[in-house]
Amino acid sequence: MNHWKLTLAYDGTTFHGWQVQPGLPTVQGLLADALHRTVGERVLPQGSGRTDAGVHAIGQVASFALVAPIPPANLHRALNRCLPPSVRVLSVDVVRSDFHARHSALRKTYEYRIFPLRPGASTAASANLPDCICPPTLAPYVWPCPWPLDLAALNRAAGYVVGTYDFTTFAASDPDLTSRTTPEPTAPTRTIYCSGWRACDDLLIYQVTANGFLHHMVRNLVGTFVQAGAHRLDPDTIPVLLAARNRAAAGPTAPATGLFLVQVDYPATDNLQPETCNSL
Amino acid sequence: MNHWKLTLAYDGTTFHGWQVQPGLPTVQGLLADALHRTVGERVLPQGSGRTDAGVHAIGQVASFALVAPIPPANLHRALNRCLPPSVRVLSVDVVRSDFHARHSALRKTYEYRIFPLRPGASTAASANLPDCICPPTLAPYVWPCPWPLDLAALNRAAGYVVGTYDFTTFAASDPDLTSRTTPEPTAPTRTIYCSGWRACDDLLIYQVTANGFLHHMVRNLVGTFVQAGAHRLDPDTIPVLLAARNRAAAGPTAPATGLFLVQVDYPATDNLQPETCNSL
Repeated sequence: MNHWKLTLAYDGTTFHGWQVQPGLPTVQGLLADALHRTVGERVLPQGSGRTDAGVHAIGQVASFALVAPIPPANLHRALNRCLPPSVRVLSVDVVRSDFHARHSALRKTYEYRIFPLRPGASTAASANLPDCICPPTLAPYVWPCPWPLDLAALNRAAGYVVGTYDFTTFAASDPDLTSRTTPEPTAPTRTIYCSGWRACDDLLIYQVTANGFLHHMVRNLVGTFVQAGAHRLDPDTIPVLLAARNRAAAGPTAPATGLFLVQVDYPATDNLQPETCNSL
Repeated sequence: MNHWKLTLAYDGTTFHGWQVQPGLPTVQGLLADALHRTVGERVLPQGSGRTDAGVHAIGQVASFALVAPIPPANLHRALNRCLPPSVRVLSVDVVRSDFHARHSALRKTYEYRIFPLRPGASTAASANLPDCICPPTLAPYVWPCPWPLDLAALNRAAGYVVGTYDFTTFAASDPDLTSRTTPEPTAPTRTIYCSGWRACDDLLIYQVTANGFLHHMVRNLVGTFVQAGAHRLDPDTIPVLLAARNRAAAGPTAPATGLFLVQVDYPATDNLQPETCNSL
């Protein structure tokens, strides 16, 4: 038996999130079906974490074990043939038997993409694709935010969350959490290593790296930072909101469409050399 | 009563094409519903042409008449509030009463976007988003073509169709056409003014401008040019295929996902000055 690590990209638009749900299209469910069609084994790949409905990934990681001996390149090609274009396997690695996509993760990085209203943009512009109208083919991958946003204010707010804090203020209240198959860790303390905004073409992009995230944490952070970026909230009040440990203190949850799971980091020794694999 | 011209962008992914169909989501149907909700009038906006299911637009044009006196900026804002993010009204103009989005059109421009396989790309690359794997968020807007393509060969093939020809070879056989509400013009002669490919970031983009297009004509041209770009067809045989006036002579139809209606041109005098409008 070999243990496998896959890196995946997906367009979350048409999925009911990562986690398998009876009768609904999910990424975990599609991947399990593709593995069954490829090697004839019924396994449930474990993700580095669940992504919610509409959330995208360009670096989700999944792990599982297979009895079948199959070369990584063959598994890679076969999975991409079975999966729809909305899910792509980017890389396939054989890993140590104690590797687990979620438990072994050291850090995760998310991006949140906003298409902001331009200051002074007219809603009756006659040119094609005027600045204020979000192109329909971009809309599933951004939050078309209805306000002009101040990049400096966004970054002043974002800087306050770097460090180790109880992030209860930015976690979903989430009454249905206990009924889920894989409960979130209960302790609400996380360490954020990087938190910042940049302008890129027509977008404002927030990137955040932490040792873990509470449910809806990135979207709640973004919803609050955007209040600061729109000059509806003083960025310097973020430490007060954080200290309140109360979801009601934060801004609204930003839409799922703008969120991308970008990268999951693991200890470097988790990948095995190919010569140690079984019968590939 | 005023006559109106709208310019529209849409993501064709979730629509059953432009043309209204009972019980199915179409762009024309959504726009008619939005007009009804905005001004309380039941009108069927006429498009510059139908786009098929999965085909996108960044410059579709629609025309209709309304009894309600409403300023263009208000109609623009109201329609974009009623429509989903997958359909955006880019501009709103009052036009002469004889303006018709299809009959008045002089030229139409389409683009077709291909994500080609890179020469020598490995299917087992371990970096994120290796060259050969089409990003899932790009897949609905391109053809992820399975071959490396030679830009010079694509352009040599594309150049042969500039001019006035009977394009029967590149038209859909389309047995159900006679049952449609708006039949295509029966004469298969069209004039192509520009036809060429360019490389843009990771994509190869074909742009074609003509005085009109037969059903599936752009997708059949692209499917044939790609045979030449993949060195499966001598580009210099295009004139022979064209002269055959036989659909069987051409290559396969390229997928709808890569096709964008980019621009429709009209005589410059079709727009009215605002002071000639009725009670806006």
